[in-house]
Amino acid sequence: MLSGIVRSALMNNRRWLPAHAALRAMSSTGPTSPYTTLSVTRPAQSITQVELYRPEKRNAMNTAFWSEMVDCFNEIAADPHCRVVVFCGAGKIFTAGIDLMDMASNILQPEGDDTARISWNLRKKISKYQETFSVLEKSPKPVVVAVHGACIGGGVDLITACDIRLCTQDAWFQVKEVDIGLAADVGTLQRLPKVIGSRSLVNELALTGRKMYADEAKSSGLVSRVFADREAMMAAALEMAGEIAARSPVAVQGTKINLLYARDHSVPEALDYMATWNMSMLQTQDLMKSAQAAMEKKSPKTITFSKL
Amino acid sequence: MLSGIVRSALMNNRRWLPAHAALRAMSSTGPTSPYTTLSVTRPAQSITQVELYRPEKRNAMNTAFWSEMVDCFNEIAADPHCRVVVFCGAGKIFTAGIDLMDMASNILQPEGDDTARISWNLRKKISKYQETFSVLEKSPKPVVVAVHGACIGGGVDLITACDIRLCTQDAWFQVKEVDIGLAADVGTLQRLPKVIGSRSLVNELALTGRKMYADEAKSSGLVSRVFADREAMMAAALEMAGEIAARSPVAVQGTKINLLYARDHSVPEALDYMATWNMSMLQTQDLMKSAQAAMEKKSPKTITFSKL
Amino acid sequence: MLSGIVRSALMNNRRWLPAHAALRAMSSTGPTSPYTTLSVTRPAQSITQVELYRPEKRNAMNTAFWSEMVDCFNEIAADPHCRVVVFCGAGKIFTAGIDLMDMASNILQPEGDDTARISWNLRKKISKYQETFSVLEKSPKPVVVAVHGACIGGGVDLITACDIRLCTQDAWFQVKEVDIGLAADVGTLQRLPKVIGSRSLVNELALTGRKMYADEAKSSGLVSRVFADREAMMAAALEMAGEIAARSPVAVQGTKINLLYARDHSVPEALDYMATWNMSMLQTQDLMKSAQAAMEKKSPKTITFSKL
Amino acid sequence: MLSGIVRSALMNNRRWLPAHAALRAMSSTGPTSPYTTLSVTRPAQSITQVELYRPEKRNAMNTAFWSEMVDCFNEIAADPHCRVVVFCGAGKIFTAGIDLMDMASNILQPEGDDTARISWNLRKKISKYQETFSVLEKSPKPVVVAVHGACIGGGVDLITACDIRLCTQDAWFQVKEVDIGLAADVGTLQRLPKVIGSRSLVNELALTGRKMYADEAKSSGLVSRVFADREAMMAAALEMAGEIAARSPVAVQGTKINLLYARDHSVPEALDYMATWNMSMLQTQDLMKSAQAAMEKKSPKTITFSKL
Amino acid sequence: MLSGIVRSALMNNRRWLPAHAALRAMSSTGPTSPYTTLSVTRPAQSITQVELYRPEKRNAMNTAFWSEMVDCFNEIAADPHCRVVVFCGAGKIFTAGIDLMDMASNILQPEGDDTARISWNLRKKISKYQETFSVLEKSPKPVVVAVHGACIGGGVDLITACDIRLCTQDAWFQVKEVDIGLAADVGTLQRLPKVIGSRSLVNELALTGRKMYADEAKSSGLVSRVFADREAMMAAALEMAGEIAARSPVAVQGTKINLLYARDHSVPEALDYMATWNMSMLQTQDLMKSAQAAMEKKSPKTITFSKL
Amino acid sequence: MLSGIVRSALMNNRRWLPAHAALRAMSSTGPTSPYTTLSVTRPAQSITQVELYRPEKRNAMNTAFWSEMVDCFNEIAADPHCRVVVFCGAGKIFTAGIDLMDMASNILQPEGDDTARISWNLRKKISKYQETFSVLEKSPKPVVVAVHGACIGGGVDLITACDIRLCTQDAWFQVKEVDIGLAADVGTLQRLPKVIGSRSLVNELALTGRKMYADEAKSSGLVSRVFADREAMMAAALEMAGEIAARSPVAVQGTKINLLYARDHSVPEALDYMATWNMSMLQTQDLMKSAQAAMEKKSPKTITFSKL
Repeated sequence: MLSGIVRSALMNNRRWLPAHAALRAMSSTGPTSPYTTLSVTRPAQSITQVELYRPEKRNAMNTAFWSEMVDCFNEIAADPHCRVVVFCGAGKIFTAGIDLMDMASNILQPEGDDTARISWNLRKKISKYQETFSVLEKSPKPVVVAVHGACIGGGVDLITACDIRLCTQDAWFQVKEVDIGLAADVGTLQRLPKVIGSRSLVNELALTGRKMYADEAKSSGLVSRVFADREAMMAAALEMAGEIAARSPVAVQGTKINLLYARDHSVPEALDYMATWNMSMLQTQDLMKSAQAAMEKKSPKTITFSKL
Repeated sequence: MLSGIVRSALMNNRRWLPAHAALRAMSSTGPTSPYTTLSVTRPAQSITQVELYRPEKRNAMNTAFWSEMVDCFNEIAADPHCRVVVFCGAGKIFTAGIDLMDMASNILQPEGDDTARISWNLRKKISKYQETFSVLEKSPKPVVVAVHGACIGGGVDLITACDIRLCTQDAWFQVKEVDIGLAADVGTLQRLPKVIGSRSLVNELALTGRKMYADEAKSSGLVSRVFADREAMMAAALEMAGEIAARSPVAVQGTKINLLYARDHSVPEALDYMATWNMSMLQTQDLMKSAQAAMEKKSPKTITFSKL
Repeated sequence: MLSGIVRSALMNNRRWLPAHAALRAMSSTGPTSPYTTLSVTRPAQSITQVELYRPEKRNAMNTAFWSEMVDCFNEIAADPHCRVVVFCGAGKIFTAGIDLMDMASNILQPEGDDTARISWNLRKKISKYQETFSVLEKSPKPVVVAVHGACIGGGVDLITACDIRLCTQDAWFQVKEVDIGLAADVGTLQRLPKVIGSRSLVNELALTGRKMYADEAKSSGLVSRVFADREAMMAAALEMAGEIAARSPVAVQGTKINLLYARDHSVPEALDYMATWNMSMLQTQDLMKSAQAAMEKKSPKTITFSKL
Repeated sequence: MLSGIVRSALMNNRRWLPAHAALRAMSSTGPTSPYTTLSVTRPAQSITQVELYRPEKRNAMNTAFWSEMVDCFNEIAADPHCRVVVFCGAGKIFTAGIDLMDMASNILQPEGDDTARISWNLRKKISKYQETFSVLEKSPKPVVVAVHGACIGGGVDLITACDIRLCTQDAWFQVKEVDIGLAADVGTLQRLPKVIGSRSLVNELALTGRKMYADEAKSSGLVSRVFADREAMMAAALEMAGEIAARSPVAVQGTKINLLYARDHSVPEALDYMATWNMSMLQTQDLMKSAQAAMEKKSPKTITFSKL
Repeated sequence: MLSGIVRSALMNNRRWLPAHAALRAMSSTGPTSPYTTLSVTRPAQSITQVELYRPEKRNAMNTAFWSEMVDCFNEIAADPHCRVVVFCGAGKIFTAGIDLMDMASNILQPEGDDTARISWNLRKKISKYQETFSVLEKSPKPVVVAVHGACIGGGVDLITACDIRLCTQDAWFQVKEVDIGLAADVGTLQRLPKVIGSRSLVNELALTGRKMYADEAKSSGLVSRVFADREAMMAAALEMAGEIAARSPVAVQGTKINLLYARDHSVPEALDYMATWNMSMLQTQDLMKSAQAAMEKKSPKTITFSKL
Repeated sequence: MLSGIVRSALMNNRRWLPAHAALRAMSSTGPTSPYTTLSVTRPAQSITQVELYRPEKRNAMNTAFWSEMVDCFNEIAADPHCRVVVFCGAGKIFTAGIDLMDMASNILQPEGDDTARISWNLRKKISKYQETFSVLEKSPKPVVVAVHGACIGGGVDLITACDIRLCTQDAWFQVKEVDIGLAADVGTLQRLPKVIGSRSLVNELALTGRKMYADEAKSSGLVSRVFADREAMMAAALEMAGEIAARSPVAVQGTKINLLYARDHSVPEALDYMATWNMSMLQTQDLMKSAQAAMEKKSPKTITFSKL
């Protein structure tokens, strides 16, 4: 009988393994092929875990990272077996931000025959780097990000493009770009003011480059929960992801899409879009299944939803 | 002489009673004709109190509710004797949200000869249900909402469309829609992120359906004050309403209209609208009356303003 | 040798003194020519301090104030020697707001042959008064505002147009306009909801005119830091200004401009603008200088940036 | 056998007669109950004809007109038997515009205790009058307007809110409002620039009040066709309406809704909305029916579509 | 008695002469002090004529021109005696566009210590040059522009910011910027597509720099009237200006402001603004005066309106 | 010596051949590898010609077409040797529009376990098909489209996304979608109203599906030039493309990008973006080269610009 369960589990595993990337189950011991900077695993059904995986380099963002993120999250967006993502960093800290050594030539030695052409090429590059974090939003699967230790520079750009932010008590955050002579151009200046409630604080962080610690991150709303250590945080992140994964993917992904739409539109515009969205999405079997379970006081985890 | 005062008061009372709805004074013992789900009273001059009144059904939102709200607040908008609204729930909790039993057929069995036509009809219904809460904003009279006990699902849609939110220490809030298989489509996803300061928290609530208690509601800014119990809260709500009602209705209602305009526009757009609004509104006698009272250190309550 | 240093310092001083305004160094003992309501000093290199200076009138905003602010900040915007502004109030409180006595005729006795023409003139006046605070945003130099004691009416309009807000423990804030019969029309209704995280609180303040004290100002995010007294606050404000002034002006001013752009646009729009902005701004020598200092663990204060 | 056909026709007629308004078939000899200014008929299946019907007053827009339009087009929007509207004027001209005699008190003697309150009431009135023409857009049924003779003042506001404009060779158009001392406030200034291609012409018409004749109306794009006389125009209008009525109402009404959405949004915004709209609307049987007919080279008129 | 009339006329003249610029009446024989590139005259009551006046340089736009335009139109905006502007060019052609010789150093040799600082300074310059034409829109007085001969480069930027465009049969237009290696950055690319009806034509003109002659300018809607020669055009321009000047300035200027608002907003937004605008502007005596004259079939020219 | 020139030309040719697609020079005899529906050639230096190449199927748009277009124009966008595109159709007509036979299963038999999931998949498909034409805009190289014979359905979606439209005297255009039961969802409803000047005509075409012939296409502004036959049109298209290719690519591509930006934004927004764009782009050597050539009355064709 045991072997039957195992076999079934394996088949299940096989079924939810995306075709084009090798996902390693349950543990992360290094980057996952085809990635050199990311480790992608499936810690539980319907949950994909993405880990920044250059611990020896403090997860600094090198040239490979910027394009691997796009590939990784495009794949996640298309993967019907993934309903939610947990994003974290391997090693001692979440990320040291941009890998200046590796990236310097990209930024400091731009190509082009004159200033206009250098500008033209720089704009293409900036747009491409922006896409690295925008894919987190473009994928309709919610992303729970779990930050421990330092989250510096590009790390802040990254986490503000995630949906739910958690951190450990020892975490700190730093909008570092101003210290190296540039206005942060891959998302922080655009998203940070829309995810926390104090504009004075946003300006202080962005203009002075000072560190913000876990307590202030919590009271300002940057993170919604703080944990004693990485282990506790990861357990909570996976539990939260489990809650999300247990709910109707039609409901969950429609919620993410409409929350992002609402951020960028007026309330009347967003209500109109919502009605136009739900005129079809309410015609899902998930609604009947969920409503019935709710009335019967059953957990959503007991329901089987079709893939989306 | 006393009788003269009484008579005059009665006549005054009569004068500020709206023509088309019977308002019962000072106590709420059940729905007010012509409503079956709302109790409408006038606890003090210029203050209208609207109470969800299906206590035996935990103030669940049934079919009647959705249209009664529209009638009720359209009437309030047109009633020159009302300057501010206090909104609350009768019985043990604020509201259990949508009355699934009563509403199921509306949502689960939509009409139409094919998917397009079902969608067409669903869109009309969603838009109509959205209007149930949008009337709270379209009426220029500020709405102070006082929440005790549970505020679930549609209840969150409702309170985010109010202007000022108060709650009791035992209150809790739940974005329930994701649990029954749909993206919240009557206002929560559109308004919640614009009334509280932590986007991470908004996403957590909307994607997991977890409860949020009074303390977090206060620290996140959903409510601006928490009270020990319903009695203390209602006393404070009425006092606050009294403060608002005592001020110039030209100032108060212009403030509400322009605060909502500002929410949905850029700062320069909103400044332009404000200037265009006030070019006439500054030509009110209320300004002179108020300025004079302010200089004489008199309370606004001593001033008599013309009806608006 | 000492004399050489002094001479050089004096020459430096002379060099960074703007041509068209007399800046008094290090102390503020009264309004600075050509101003009657503002004192403008240079407490440290690259830092301009602007002080409301009618202490005997509780820094009330009289007719002169509204235009002096525009002149002052236009000059600051054009002054290459200023990289950051500290804004504060002289005397016992920050400001009592509008000087009703002085301004009454402007507002209460508008000119014009009929209502339309009076409205026309009022609109021009309101737009002009709005400009008084909008110049704080239009100048690309960050403004750190330090509030002690009372900040009333127009004071709230003023500080919400600044970038970073600090206050003392004894500070309080009051949206006073509703008390004198008008909707606040020079910025508070437009900016306050975008700088703090609780809309319920914004509405409460704007509709009731109640005072908000330092603790609530901090927890709501209106200010990002609270200090024991004015002295401690001013020291911290100058230190913070020093941090900002030490960083690349290309980075700092580009950050301010793009943060304001992001406030008024969707995230995708703001990202596009950012990329178009930085395609030239990344071609600054400041980037190389700053990156090198960062790698060498040197303070930004050791770097000399070209004027901007 | 003939009687059978007649009976069937009558029954058909009965079926498409809306419940709440008496529609007279095939001829228009006066206003239709409950209207005093409009004649509503059904000249052919699925086509509703609305006629301005105060010929003895040159179809001037009196007090009744402004609310009857709203009732009429709300009814049309809800009437499943109407798929397209032909709008025209009875008598010698299309319309002389506002009935100044009848409306003067509304505009020239507004109520209110002070300027602010008069303004408040005027704003409500203007908004209400704007709604009179906006209903033409809010109804998803396309409106073909046929203009003969004069189309003055409010007439231009009206026709610019219609979808397709036709006129006779003797027609002329006049933005009259500037002649009576006001900026046109019920639609012309907002819609005229968006329906014709020359902004110089729009400004000329609106600022000088000069007449524009049929040829210029055609060359500027205000109308898309000009006819020799009213008879020829009405025949063509009905034929065009017949073409529209023969097509899938899902396609036709979705087209109108998305064309209006595109007018008020950027191309990327409008494309997104369109995709969200059609994700359900493509699931209509009409698509299969229409595609099959198209492949079989059959006229759309041979297809029976479900009501919408 | 005649002398009395003359004296009174002179005094009237004197009264409507703006304080800070010497306007020469009825003829234009050269630039008007304090301008070196513009001739400003008053050809008839309430009409200001502005003439490009460097005929020997084909009215090329030199350094002085860009700031004189701003001064000139700010003055016009504030001048209560001006109700409408006629804009034209002295000499053989309307304008040859930018004076490359005079302007070259501004554009080709920008200042700044590095690319970022050069960019910073260039942006300020471009914004300043854009303002040169935007003042035409910011002044609420309508501008009728009359073009003869060539209208090249900056000339197209200029005329697209005017309200009504007229030209002679020999006029031609050329978007010249692409020929000298830059994207037109002072208005043409932004305004031209919004003033003519063919986007294909706009693109053709802007991308190839080809000339467009009067016939195509008329058929595309760039101009609304074409005249045989300059004399006929100027007579018509002044007659048209006379028609505009004869109408209520409240109506005329409110029309211009709302037409421009409508260009840049959705129809519902623009309707809302219009209602908020007219709630005060309808309270003008001009309405009664105009309505009465209209009913009495009198010309607007017989009415005396208060200054605005 | 001649052979030297030839060899050099060949080498030049080789140099501007993109690495990843085989371009056949000067003639188009069939689809170009890797495409099966498009023929891509280089008729002259810096000009890429893209031809719909399924003449035996009347260039109907089959499954392959929708993705080949994206690949093709992404490649064009990245190809520094291409400065302008000429787009046309092989065979008897431009295109018959969608290939219903080939595409039917995509649209008529969408996949998904319930209506919500079918909708989800349809939305992804529609978005993907929209991208097929949006790439024409996203590539900064201008596209001149030359239409002969019929341009039906998807053909109209395609050409409205091009920059300049030309046609032959025998061309006709048809918004066909309404005939097959759907609202046109890949661009026509969004772009057609923004490229022609008569909204009445747009609505007529979209709601009735009637044909529009060359004359009306010209007078309405859809095309800016009409030619006697395909040969004359192609010669003119290539000449026009030659004019564009001869000008500074910095100027040309910046013009296209800013014209599209202006379409989707208000004038002040677009001016701000333009200034921010040109602050770097004016620092091009092209400006000096072009200005010099212009002053020397030399053709732009004599200038050599660096690649972009």
